[in-house]
Amino acid sequence: MATLIAPTSFSPGADAEVLRKAFQGWGTDEKSVIAILGHRNVHQRQQIRKAYEEIYQEDLIKRLESELTGDFERAVYRWMLEPADRDAVLANVAVKSGNKGYHVIVEIACVLSPEEVLAVRRAYHYRYKRSLEEDVATHTTGHLRQLLVGLVTSFRYGGDEINPRLAKTEADVLHDSIKEKKGNHEEAIRILTTRSKIQLLATFNRYRDDHGTSITKKLLDNASDDFHKALHTAIRCINDHKKYYEKVLRNAIKRIGTDEDALTRVVVSRAEKDLRDIKELYYKRNSVHLEDAVAKEISGDYKKFILTLLGKQD
Amino acid sequence: MATLIAPTSFSPGADAEVLRKAFQGWGTDEKSVIAILGHRNVHQRQQIRKAYEEIYQEDLIKRLESELTGDFERAVYRWMLEPADRDAVLANVAVKSGNKGYHVIVEIACVLSPEEVLAVRRAYHYRYKRSLEEDVATHTTGHLRQLLVGLVTSFRYGGDEINPRLAKTEADVLHDSIKEKKGNHEEAIRILTTRSKIQLLATFNRYRDDHGTSITKKLLDNASDDFHKALHTAIRCINDHKKYYEKVLRNAIKRIGTDEDALTRVVVSRAEKDLRDIKELYYKRNSVHLEDAVAKEISGDYKKFILTLLGKQD
Repeated sequence: MATLIAPTSFSPGADAEVLRKAFQGWGTDEKSVIAILGHRNVHQRQQIRKAYEEIYQEDLIKRLESELTGDFERAVYRWMLEPADRDAVLANVAVKSGNKGYHVIVEIACVLSPEEVLAVRRAYHYRYKRSLEEDVATHTTGHLRQLLVGLVTSFRYGGDEINPRLAKTEADVLHDSIKEKKGNHEEAIRILTTRSKIQLLATFNRYRDDHGTSITKKLLDNASDDFHKALHTAIRCINDHKKYYEKVLRNAIKRIGTDEDALTRVVVSRAEKDLRDIKELYYKRNSVHLEDAVAKEISGDYKKFILTLLGKQD
Repeated sequence: MATLIAPTSFSPGADAEVLRKAFQGWGTDEKSVIAILGHRNVHQRQQIRKAYEEIYQEDLIKRLESELTGDFERAVYRWMLEPADRDAVLANVAVKSGNKGYHVIVEIACVLSPEEVLAVRRAYHYRYKRSLEEDVATHTTGHLRQLLVGLVTSFRYGGDEINPRLAKTEADVLHDSIKEKKGNHEEAIRILTTRSKIQLLATFNRYRDDHGTSITKKLLDNASDDFHKALHTAIRCINDHKKYYEKVLRNAIKRIGTDEDALTRVVVSRAEKDLRDIKELYYKRNSVHLEDAVAKEISGDYKKFILTLLGKQD
C-alpha cells in the first residue's frame, strides 16, 4: 500500500498557476510547492509539468531546481522525475560513487520487475547516451562486475513455475559457494542473475531447511568485501524488499548525521507503491513510528515534504 | 534489400482456402504451398494463419508440420514463425546442441538490433517459461559463459556517437587480450558485450590502423577453443553481418553433404531483410550465383522453396 495522498480530480493548469505564483516575488513559497506536489501521483505530476511548460514556456523541473536548495531540492527533483528516469539518475550517481553506490544498483536491478528494469535501461540510454551495463562494467572488475552486470542485464522469467529439484541442487551450490570465501563464485552468480525470482525464493527456503540458517545470515558472516556485500544485498532485495527497505531507513535514521540521500531515495521511490507496508515493518521492528523517528532527525521544508510523502495528514 | 517477392494485395481467406485444398485428398500439393507461402511477407503470413484458424478451427503451422516432411517441413515451419519467435526457437535448439550451436546464439545476439534481441528474449520467456540467459548460462562455463551471457543480455546503446579516444584504448586492450592465449579475457568480454555497435566498429578500425591487421584475422590465428571461436563470430557479426552470412552460406554449400540447417536458417532469416545483398557478396566471392550453387546441392520441394525465397522468378 502507498502512503501518498492524492486527490482523484485536479486541474493541471490550476496547479501550474499556484506553482508559478509560489516562485514569484522575493523568495519561494515552499509551503505551496509541498501542498501541491506532495499530493499528486506520478501521472498528475507529469500533467502539471506539461501544463506548466505550455503556459509559461519553461521547464518546471529546472525552475524548481533554481528555486529550492539542499536536501529539499534534491528530494523534489527526484520526486518529479518519472520512476524509470529517476532510477536511471540514481543508478548513474551510484555508478560514479564507486563502492558506496553498489547497493543502489543492486536495489534497482533486484526490487523492480523485469519489465521495470528494462524501462530503466531505456531511460539510461536516453539520458546518458550509453548503456547502464556499459557504465557498471567500466567501473568494476572481477566477481563484483560479473554480479552487478549480470543483475542489471538480466531479464528474468516472470512466471510462477517452480522447479523444486533445482531449488535443492542450487541451494547446495549457493551453500558451497558462500563457504569458501575465496572460492569460485561463478555458479552463485549464475543462479542469482538468471533464475526467476519465484524460483530463487524456493531456493532460499530450501537453503534454510537444509542448512539450518538463512542464506542472508550465512552470507553476513562472510560479507567482508564488496562482492559479498553486493551478493547479500541482492538476496535481501529478492527475498523481501520491504524488509530490506525498512533496514535502509533504520540505518539512515540512526546514523550520526542522518543519511538524507538514502531516506529520500526510499521515500520517493516507494511512496506510491508500498511505503505503508514498510512503515508498518518499521514500527514493528523499532517500536516507534517512522514519521516520528524521521521528524526528530530532519528539519525545515525537507522535513515537511518527506512527512507529506509519508502520508502525514496536514 | 530483400529477395522475397510478395504481392501488394492479397486475400488471407482465399490463401487459407488454397492451402486447405492442398492438404486434402491423398498426399499434399506442395506446389501450392510454395506458391502461396513462398510469396507472402511476415504480416501476410500471420494474417493467413489467423484466417486459416478462424475458418477451419485448426492451427495452420501444426497442419503444415503434419503434411510436410524433412528439410522442407523444417524450412516452412521456421518461415511461418514470427521473426522473434523463430529466433527463440533457433536459440533454444542451439543451446541444447552444445558447442556446435554457440555461433547461432552469437549471431542472434550480435546481428539483431538491441530492440530485436529484447523481442527474442520475450518470445523465449513465452515459449519456454525460462529466460534465454538462464539456459545459456546453465549450459556453459567460464569465459565462454561470460561472453555468451553478456551478448544475449546486453541492451546496447543505439545512438551514433563515437568516442575516438576510447576506440584507441580499447583496441589496445583487445589486442593484448587476444595475444595471450590463456590470458585474462574479462576486459575483452566487457568491451564486446557492452559497447554500442558503432563504437565497436570504430574500435575495430582503430585496431587495423594500429596493429596492421584486422582483429578477426588476428583472432582466427588463435581461435583454437570455443571461447575464441565465439569471440571471432561475435566480432564478425558486429563488423559486417552480410559478409558473415555469405561465409555461412559458402560453408553450408561446399561441405560434403550440404548443411541444410545453416542454409535454411540464413535464407529464412534474411529473405525479408538483406538476402539480395548477401547474394551479391556471394557472387563476388565465388563467381557463381547463389541460386545456381544451391540448386546443385539440394533437391525436391525443399529446393523449390529455398529458390523461391531466394527470389527466383517462377
